[in-house]
Amino acid sequence: MYALLSVSDKEGIVDFARGLRALGFEILSTGGTLDLLNKNQIDAIDVSSYTQSEEMFDGRVKTLHPKIHGGILYQRAKEADVATAKQKGIQAIDIVCVNLYPFKETIEKTDDFDTIIENIDIGGPSMIRAGAKNFQSVLVITDKNDYTLVLEKIKNKENTLDFRREMMIKAFNHTAEYDAMIANYMNQRFHNGFGQKIFISANKVFQTRYGENPHQQGAFYEFNETYKKHLKILKGEASFNNLTDINAAIKLASSFGSAKAISIIKHGNPCGFAIKDNLLESYKEALRCDSVSAYGGVVAINGVVDENLALEISKTFIEVLVSAGITEGALKVFENKKRMKIFTFGDGILHQCRDAYDFKRIEGGLVYQQSDKVLLEEVRNAQLMSKMPACQKTLQDLEIAYVISALTKSNCVAYVKNQALVAIGMGMTSRVDASYAAIKKAKEMGIDLKDCVLASEAFFPFKDSIEMAASIGVKAIIEPGGSIRDDEVIACANENNIALYFSGIRHFLH
Amino acid sequence: MYALLSVSDKEGIVDFARGLRALGFEILSTGGTLDLLNKNQIDAIDVSSYTQSEEMFDGRVKTLHPKIHGGILYQRAKEADVATAKQKGIQAIDIVCVNLYPFKETIEKTDDFDTIIENIDIGGPSMIRAGAKNFQSVLVITDKNDYTLVLEKIKNKENTLDFRREMMIKAFNHTAEYDAMIANYMNQRFHNGFGQKIFISANKVFQTRYGENPHQQGAFYEFNETYKKHLKILKGEASFNNLTDINAAIKLASSFGSAKAISIIKHGNPCGFAIKDNLLESYKEALRCDSVSAYGGVVAINGVVDENLALEISKTFIEVLVSAGITEGALKVFENKKRMKIFTFGDGILHQCRDAYDFKRIEGGLVYQQSDKVLLEEVRNAQLMSKMPACQKTLQDLEIAYVISALTKSNCVAYVKNQALVAIGMGMTSRVDASYAAIKKAKEMGIDLKDCVLASEAFFPFKDSIEMAASIGVKAIIEPGGSIRDDEVIACANENNIALYFSGIRHFLH
Repeated sequence: MYALLSVSDKEGIVDFARGLRALGFEILSTGGTLDLLNKNQIDAIDVSSYTQSEEMFDGRVKTLHPKIHGGILYQRAKEADVATAKQKGIQAIDIVCVNLYPFKETIEKTDDFDTIIENIDIGGPSMIRAGAKNFQSVLVITDKNDYTLVLEKIKNKENTLDFRREMMIKAFNHTAEYDAMIANYMNQRFHNGFGQKIFISANKVFQTRYGENPHQQGAFYEFNETYKKHLKILKGEASFNNLTDINAAIKLASSFGSAKAISIIKHGNPCGFAIKDNLLESYKEALRCDSVSAYGGVVAINGVVDENLALEISKTFIEVLVSAGITEGALKVFENKKRMKIFTFGDGILHQCRDAYDFKRIEGGLVYQQSDKVLLEEVRNAQLMSKMPACQKTLQDLEIAYVISALTKSNCVAYVKNQALVAIGMGMTSRVDASYAAIKKAKEMGIDLKDCVLASEAFFPFKDSIEMAASIGVKAIIEPGGSIRDDEVIACANENNIALYFSGIRHFLH
Repeated sequence: MYALLSVSDKEGIVDFARGLRALGFEILSTGGTLDLLNKNQIDAIDVSSYTQSEEMFDGRVKTLHPKIHGGILYQRAKEADVATAKQKGIQAIDIVCVNLYPFKETIEKTDDFDTIIENIDIGGPSMIRAGAKNFQSVLVITDKNDYTLVLEKIKNKENTLDFRREMMIKAFNHTAEYDAMIANYMNQRFHNGFGQKIFISANKVFQTRYGENPHQQGAFYEFNETYKKHLKILKGEASFNNLTDINAAIKLASSFGSAKAISIIKHGNPCGFAIKDNLLESYKEALRCDSVSAYGGVVAINGVVDENLALEISKTFIEVLVSAGITEGALKVFENKKRMKIFTFGDGILHQCRDAYDFKRIEGGLVYQQSDKVLLEEVRNAQLMSKMPACQKTLQDLEIAYVISALTKSNCVAYVKNQALVAIGMGMTSRVDASYAAIKKAKEMGIDLKDCVLASEAFFPFKDSIEMAASIGVKAIIEPGGSIRDDEVIACANENNIALYFSGIRHFLH
């Protein structure tokens, strides 16, 4: 019984090899792995002495040999294969344990192309893929976390076909991910991220109870280890739709540095947001905007939830609470809230995660783009178009309104007053309809909109929304500008003593 | 100069080999490729005679040999490497031309697992990856469409480092796609599509002018060749946002078989839809629903556009027209419409494309699910909850309203009358707000809603939307049901002589 061990990451390999030896395996090894085993007094056969073929070209050619690949690939159930193997002195290699040159770590630490190319593993994937193909007889191990399990399985005679098949799937997952990483890197480096092919690979974080609807199965995958590292599940399990809402909530609440920001999201869109001096005030103000829609919503808190805040939150049914920490006392407050789910993401302030690329599925494909970024600078650098400028406090409200409008489904208008969202219209095919819906809702909520500010993620095509804004006492507006009727819009702002700023940057979000 | 040729798809290989021979290359080959070359009187050296190592195990081991991989991988610029190669009789292999066992074609035509496993190529990817790694010296060819180009390049001494680098990127794209396909297949077969890792790979169809916004770069990728085959660009270029709208438009217009359906989409949501006896009537009715939002919208037509229809369409500014065909006369009508874009997708009726899986990006990852399907059967099998049933004609309207509501951003309500959408509310955080916004808009448009039907993609949580429906004369409603206040909703329907059906199936779309 032969086991081939050739690993780049050597953690755990010594104990694994010792375990295999104890189970009666002969070990074939090479390069650094062999040295390490020898140093630890573990008997191992050098691949070059076994193949009678020296390691060549600084290790570029070590295991690419018929005696190795034949030993992995030949079909044990085929008489002819067995006879050939015997005749050629090819031993059956029943265990292949390989992990690959650290391509990812290399591109993270250097731009030197020769170093990067040298860290593309050739022999490793060949052995892994050969072992996986012949999983009928061969156990392939690509993850150091499986060493203990593998030894147990062999010891208990549980190295079954089913087990080897699972390891085969894991192996192909590994080689697919490795080459996807290389391809994406090359496309990134030489084709600006938009090469002829793109690869999106992701790891399962957890299965969700179902997908967007109960008749759809669903699961949550991550690109790196963002959620594994930063997401702590304290109560309940996140549903598919919770995850998209949590994403929207965190994105908005983490947009203002360490400010005590709180967002409330329903169906992917904000229905509450505020930044006050303390989180309790922020929450109260955020909830005021649309307490009806907030029912069953997702709340993100850029800070630590204490008992007082928890008592306030517990007055309403909030389905999901995600914060940057929560005290024991606060957790206790929610103890009996059966349907409530509690998570943390980050420590002290919410972890800020922003991917460089963005994509949306359409039937048969996807549209792929650089991610949109919305920066507070855009407001600070916006151009004053009206005669009247906004005062400092109003500019702060404009910043908040601007960020909210950029993170809400188009067409969107956001009205902010005293650093709290007071009205919002979203997701409609017409901008003036969104304006109208926002104002109507605010009236129903008994909110006084006088002296609020207004932001729109894309230009106002007509002055109708400005007139509507004037009628409720809006004192400042920010929008990208760019309509052929900008003149009318500016004139209307001036007539109504509204400060009007153009940012020049559109933030459609569909 | 050695070229290694080992291809599964043999199209074009004879001419390519002949060309290489004429340019002075010695050809190394194996298996079926070698036989074919010999049959065509092309001198080629058998890999086994070159390596002095027989092909073994039914071809599982042919090229996995140090003389092959050494010849591909050694660094020509390194004196030590050159000396080793010379000493070991290893010839430099400067061209590697390989394409892989047809895994995709195999899984499309059989479920037999042994056959599938046999069609996982091991030697091929090893050679491709080795050639790609050493692109400094080696030209790697994985696409038969490149043969002519490659011969030209070599002939004209344009086999430059840049060219080889591009071919290297193409090679890694190829191996990444191959293993992603294998991994996805295994995850599909054994883990129901939700394995530990998922891979999404896609091919560029075209770069878009920009992404969702002008400051973002973007491109359009497809999973298979759906768009390459079915999308014809007759006028203009599709923008990033056009593509998502086109997707929504086609999906809706193709949902009723060969019915003469027309949809109008703005910002991803329907603002018009009708199925009439002829396309001209369908268009007129579809436009009536919200002719204001339709301005600059995307129209999908489940049929062929003729001159009469074109004349009608040309009365409004429609940014994108996508149909299943267009006559010469109709195209002429649009000739002077500078900003208008015209595409076809399908022939006679729109091509229906529905992916089995769906995903949405969130920061740091994605949520992945089985795609939602909306079936007319759901309406036909819906349960009558009210005393009064709907008549046959009303049931037809319910079907249309139901499909529209399922393909519109939640929360959504769709009102249909005489097989045309007459009012729609969408994308709002509250369902009753969406109901109100829809009715308000219909009034502005001067549409008489009396005797229309209403569909909601998720249950009505309260009877308020039913009361509102009654006030405008809605005669039938379909919704999934499932609210804890369903009793109130049913009672309200009965009080107002509204036929109420529960489908039992929710269609959230966020």
